[in-house]
Amino acid sequence: MYKLLDKIQSPENLKTLTIPELNALCAEIREFLVDSVSKTGGHLASNLGVVELTVALHTVFDVPKDKIIFDVGHQSYVHKILTGRKDKFDTLRQFGGLSGFPKRGESGCDAFDTGHSSTSISAALGIARARDLDGDDYNVISVFGDGALTGGMMYEAMNDAGHSRTPLILILNDNAMSIARNVGAVSTHLRKLRMSPAYFHSKVIVERILNKIPLVGKGIATVIKKVKRFFRRLVIPTTMFDDLGFTYMGPVDGHDIEALISCFDYVKSEKKPVFIHVQTKKGKGYAPAESNPQKFHGISPFDKETGETAKSGETYSDRFGAAMVRIAEKNPKVVAITGAMPNGTGLDEFVKKNKNRFFDVGIAEQHGVTLSAGLAAAGYIPVIPLYSSFLQRAYDQTLHDVCLQNLHVVFPIDRAGIVGADGETHQGVYDISYLTHMPNMTLLSPATLDQLEEMLDFAINRFDAPIAIRYPRGGCEAENVPRTFTLGKAQLIREGTDVTIVATGRMVKRAEEVAAVAGRSVEILAMPTIKPLDGETVIASAVKTGHVITIEDNVKIGGMGSMIASLIAERGIKCTLKIFAFPDSPIPHGTVSELDAYCGCDAAAIVGYMNNSMREENNNG
Amino acid sequence: MYKLLDKIQSPENLKTLTIPELNALCAEIREFLVDSVSKTGGHLASNLGVVELTVALHTVFDVPKDKIIFDVGHQSYVHKILTGRKDKFDTLRQFGGLSGFPKRGESGCDAFDTGHSSTSISAALGIARARDLDGDDYNVISVFGDGALTGGMMYEAMNDAGHSRTPLILILNDNAMSIARNVGAVSTHLRKLRMSPAYFHSKVIVERILNKIPLVGKGIATVIKKVKRFFRRLVIPTTMFDDLGFTYMGPVDGHDIEALISCFDYVKSEKKPVFIHVQTKKGKGYAPAESNPQKFHGISPFDKETGETAKSGETYSDRFGAAMVRIAEKNPKVVAITGAMPNGTGLDEFVKKNKNRFFDVGIAEQHGVTLSAGLAAAGYIPVIPLYSSFLQRAYDQTLHDVCLQNLHVVFPIDRAGIVGADGETHQGVYDISYLTHMPNMTLLSPATLDQLEEMLDFAINRFDAPIAIRYPRGGCEAENVPRTFTLGKAQLIREGTDVTIVATGRMVKRAEEVAAVAGRSVEILAMPTIKPLDGETVIASAVKTGHVITIEDNVKIGGMGSMIASLIAERGIKCTLKIFAFPDSPIPHGTVSELDAYCGCDAAAIVGYMNNSMREENNNG
Repeated sequence: MYKLLDKIQSPENLKTLTIPELNALCAEIREFLVDSVSKTGGHLASNLGVVELTVALHTVFDVPKDKIIFDVGHQSYVHKILTGRKDKFDTLRQFGGLSGFPKRGESGCDAFDTGHSSTSISAALGIARARDLDGDDYNVISVFGDGALTGGMMYEAMNDAGHSRTPLILILNDNAMSIARNVGAVSTHLRKLRMSPAYFHSKVIVERILNKIPLVGKGIATVIKKVKRFFRRLVIPTTMFDDLGFTYMGPVDGHDIEALISCFDYVKSEKKPVFIHVQTKKGKGYAPAESNPQKFHGISPFDKETGETAKSGETYSDRFGAAMVRIAEKNPKVVAITGAMPNGTGLDEFVKKNKNRFFDVGIAEQHGVTLSAGLAAAGYIPVIPLYSSFLQRAYDQTLHDVCLQNLHVVFPIDRAGIVGADGETHQGVYDISYLTHMPNMTLLSPATLDQLEEMLDFAINRFDAPIAIRYPRGGCEAENVPRTFTLGKAQLIREGTDVTIVATGRMVKRAEEVAAVAGRSVEILAMPTIKPLDGETVIASAVKTGHVITIEDNVKIGGMGSMIASLIAERGIKCTLKIFAFPDSPIPHGTVSELDAYCGCDAAAIVGYMNNSMREENNNG
Repeated sequence: MYKLLDKIQSPENLKTLTIPELNALCAEIREFLVDSVSKTGGHLASNLGVVELTVALHTVFDVPKDKIIFDVGHQSYVHKILTGRKDKFDTLRQFGGLSGFPKRGESGCDAFDTGHSSTSISAALGIARARDLDGDDYNVISVFGDGALTGGMMYEAMNDAGHSRTPLILILNDNAMSIARNVGAVSTHLRKLRMSPAYFHSKVIVERILNKIPLVGKGIATVIKKVKRFFRRLVIPTTMFDDLGFTYMGPVDGHDIEALISCFDYVKSEKKPVFIHVQTKKGKGYAPAESNPQKFHGISPFDKETGETAKSGETYSDRFGAAMVRIAEKNPKVVAITGAMPNGTGLDEFVKKNKNRFFDVGIAEQHGVTLSAGLAAAGYIPVIPLYSSFLQRAYDQTLHDVCLQNLHVVFPIDRAGIVGADGETHQGVYDISYLTHMPNMTLLSPATLDQLEEMLDFAINRFDAPIAIRYPRGGCEAENVPRTFTLGKAQLIREGTDVTIVATGRMVKRAEEVAAVAGRSVEILAMPTIKPLDGETVIASAVKTGHVITIEDNVKIGGMGSMIASLIAERGIKCTLKIFAFPDSPIPHGTVSELDAYCGCDAAAIVGYMNNSMREENNNG
């Protein structure tokens, strides 16, 4: 079907191709990518942007001997196609199928698992240092976007690497976008570099001209000599990457495969820290993605001809965004902060209407949270929506800067629980465990879109301390939960006598499903407040039914169920307890319902427990 | 007693003093600092270094209207002295006394609480943005050391601030040291800047000379014009701070109070992001501290004349360091990583003997952990000792880069539990809660120095997955704990029939204390392994005695007690349970024993519980 691509079994096959053939191969890869991702969904725009870059890397370097680390990792599709995984692309991001991110367990050509931003230089430096200790001489290459450069870890790593002079090849894939349009002073710096003539040329020209300036007259000669020395010192470290100890090269056209190959050939033997600035276009070669790279960043299956995706229903992110607009209209103290994801978190409309009250900090959750603490200390009400898995990056800032000072920062936590196709690096299944032990933190979780709106209004307008609201990807809603809630109070949404199910967030609907088919009298307590936990209501119900089941979309250790267990055990309540929560192992990619079942948290598993274990106990009791 | 200092009731009093008077005042402040800290202990060297800087700040700016944020915060003593807290210095870092760090609750002159490194620019930017939204015009100033500049948050914040052009004054207090001697490429960059003539002068000279170069000949004229334009572009953004959007000024002599005052006077009205590079000497003016700033960084009470402190016994850090030397001699794959604290964590000797296997990453825990993951992926065994409270900064890297990939990284966690005088920002009381829910993580805790040695050997030589070992500050040891341990097994260290005490780490000794005076038959289970927890042994003992007490130096939520509660409640074990752990609120500064009592975790509280609650239950049962 693909004249050239079908013959590529491994990167070795690239090395014999001519430049025109490589260009033709790139066109075929693009066609394959669009065709394949239109059926499975996935990260398209970023992969279309790195076709030539990846082909050139594999033409010059030798994996698995040489190590390539893809920062964030969702731009590794071309790498996967070229390293023997093309035929599995119909299983991409599906349960049991190919991961959308590099995985050491999937191929020896994947040097390091990535998912979160800005880790690649640190990992590459670790591998490079191991290489040097071993006396080996392979190349270690980190490929990252300009978005990743907004993350502080990159500077920590460059500061270390540039100083120690460990040979390392950094490749900046600069498309002037992270997920949304890029922000920050570094971005401006890069824009200036992009507009400059290629730096290597300039440096040569300057040196040549300096040597030509005639040294006439005695006084002037000394002055000019001094000036020359001064200029040389200034000229050598001209970019901030030079200042950090790297040799900056670029900008290189990231779609000119010949230029890329000669650049990589040159640095291959340099044996020092090198920073190559490559310019690419996100979505390159597929018109709908070129014109709307943000939409095609991570996309569900779409129509190849039109680029249209199926319409989905209202999500928690949508409702959060709408509520923010409404609340900010009335409360001038509300400000919003995003970590490069105004669209993903639903803030688009807020941004349009409140430009001066909106701050995009880049992929810099740490700074974003402490910035919020500063705003709160000065009397504003910062709202910083982050995906559950990305808030992990700001654990210390949330605890040290917000909670210890008891500052009024609102944390809407999107994508809490199972996120699905992105898999283990992105599952938001730890936040109950990492937030509830922070002093002064309050944690809410809505069971319906309406309840999210109510909670956001409460958190902003009727509260004055750190508060987080966790809600899932999509729009899963319970049926019998009122819009209103009372802080610290459970909600009795179904009365029963045989067993108490305590559920929170998305799992309240699961409790309803179970109750409908359980064949016994189920009492359901919805927990809109996870912390502080309404122990009295839970205990009263436990005493009544004698059996408690808890359900949450979080790992079991440190979760809501374990808080309830402490209560039951310390108070000596006579009842059985079963905690349904996620296991103590990484949760792979798949659909939410596949993964609920995989984790033993689907309705069948819960009903099964009731029919088996609880019946036995009843017989015994 | 102090001619000038005694008259300073508030910063207002400084504004009428002459330069010679201010210099005389600085001498008095130094005398006061040495005298006071020699009695209480505390951070001395850094405060001696910022005397003129702080006096100049308070002479030019007006707190509390203007906001000064001290990064890390242990260099805020002079600020505290000048803002009405001099007379409380005899209570410094003592329970109920003055904190060693800025505290908003202590004075309106403290703009933001700090403790961990590299947060100050983020917080300052938040306050500055609030100011601009309010239409106000006060100054916001962040004061940080060159050590803090190794932390990635600083770049995230500068990237944001420099881009948005929010008026902000950054003051780099460059003493070429963080706690130990500073590392990294930025440090080299700063050294170059320090050796340069003052930047403002250079820029003026260059412009003047460029304008003098004669434009002779037509062809040459065009070339020279181009070169001039090129040079100007290069000359304007010469430091990496300029690249980040700040106007760099410096270097300024940080002990020349006149130079500091005129510099601050100048920037006061600049209304843009400014970066002032101030050079200071750590320990300035006190010979013992000047010659050994690392010793006088944070110090216990000492002899003012000689600088000598009382000898203390062997600590867990000491033993860790000695064990590392011994283990590394035999195992060539062992490497050590530190976050700027080779001395504090006990690595000094290892460093001397294994220079090539040691990496100091700066105050950059995030990078340090992912660097370790890279080293582990390439076959080395990285050991990265960090204080419990600082590992918080690398929560995501530990989970995302180490645990999800199941890499063999060893995390010795020093200063776990109550740290004492440093207070709430430094208490290491969250690590059991934030580590146990990470998949693939194993968590150990020794009750004796010998057991730490044994555990380190096990973790490095007989294990192959992520593993953490938590141990306290100092050298607190249990009496009846064997050196050896078995992974995942509790240790029965005292048999009894009335009540089971399950204790871990430092609290095993507490259990022994309680048992000695309890007046009933106490069974003690020491838990060298916190995860995986030895449920069977705990349950067997609980069934036997009918009463379980758990003790740990960690917060209650998500701690070891709550893991045991889950076990008891889910298994339906008939026993009472009482969890002794720290409360869900920030824990202030004081001695370890004062704070144990404050938290209700001292022997008296536990014995009290046994005598009251357990007796009642016995009467009832």
